[in-house]
Amino acid sequence: MAEVAAARRSRITPEREAELYEAVLDLLREVGYDALTMDAVAARTRSSKATLYRQWGGKAELVARAIRHSKPGSIADVDTGSLRGDFHALVTREDDCTMEQNNALMRGLAMATHTNPDLLRAFREQLVQPETEEFRRVLGRAVDRGEVRADNPALPFVVHMMIGAFATRAIIDDQPPTQAFLRSYIDAVVLPALGVPTS
Amino acid sequence: MAEVAAARRSRITPEREAELYEAVLDLLREVGYDALTMDAVAARTRSSKATLYRQWGGKAELVARAIRHSKPGSIADVDTGSLRGDFHALVTREDDCTMEQNNALMRGLAMATHTNPDLLRAFREQLVQPETEEFRRVLGRAVDRGEVRADNPALPFVVHMMIGAFATRAIIDDQPPTQAFLRSYIDAVVLPALGVPTS
Repeated sequence: MAEVAAARRSRITPEREAELYEAVLDLLREVGYDALTMDAVAARTRSSKATLYRQWGGKAELVARAIRHSKPGSIADVDTGSLRGDFHALVTREDDCTMEQNNALMRGLAMATHTNPDLLRAFREQLVQPETEEFRRVLGRAVDRGEVRADNPALPFVVHMMIGAFATRAIIDDQPPTQAFLRSYIDAVVLPALGVPTS
Repeated sequence: MAEVAAARRSRITPEREAELYEAVLDLLREVGYDALTMDAVAARTRSSKATLYRQWGGKAELVARAIRHSKPGSIADVDTGSLRGDFHALVTREDDCTMEQNNALMRGLAMATHTNPDLLRAFREQLVQPETEEFRRVLGRAVDRGEVRADNPALPFVVHMMIGAFATRAIIDDQPPTQAFLRSYIDAVVLPALGVPTS
């Protein structure tokens, strides 16, 4: 699937693709997923709807690709030499303002997945599965360095811990997740659960 | 606020109150928060809308109270003598089927909080704050028993860990949270983060 989509998209330039994703994110912030139409994307980007459907297959895949494109590079590319360094670097890739904006966008999309099975599938294929795989590589390096035991039972739950803290901060504390909050959580919860000393 | 509401509600019998909450939950499952109207609640329960408003103040408070009422008693009443025992007992109070139904309901409501500030406030006052306080009592007993150090930095994050796992399971793994999943998570993540041995 991903290869077919990539082949379809290769007909347009990377600059044009980036411009299109930016327009999709703008529209998402303006009207939300349910009210976003391929007509609006076509109008905003001066494309034809036929082109959009041919290149992305549909709204759900286009939106998931746009989100993925907006992420600051692969998680697995962060490689500081220690797991604590990698986790802290991960949460400082976006400043608090960007994080809050993206948090609002992601919450809106997570909501929309409940009533849009296409979006849930695209979300999982384009975002959750690749990020889980990238986390696995970061953790694999920590295991190879001897920082984490290969059979540590918290390893399969790292993504739940990280996304869980991010997703629950606003509703529990009436505050958006910030770098400082996530760093404290990493040091107090994630690293101790993995048996990694934090000092 | 809570005292005033309790005084207002004291005019109806506990049986009638329970019947009313049950009808609200049924309606929530049928149509969701946004489409739920006080008219529908009044019709379903053969009450007057004036009575509903007088006793609960509004839709958001009525819904939050109904959810709270459906929970299987106070978290802090679970007292097995060990923190691991308490946490495991907590997640076995509801069977997997009930948990899946409630999970769907809570996800729908969490979604609705994003666009309904009244509901967010009622949700936090009626559900998040009391549960946080109840968890604090469970954890306080563990500190008193010497199981957890009073200055353990994971203590302020226990609610994020627990709700986070519950809330992210479906989107990460395409499976509902189950008792077995939550028990594994407690043993692999929550207890190790708190420095409590799991065997």
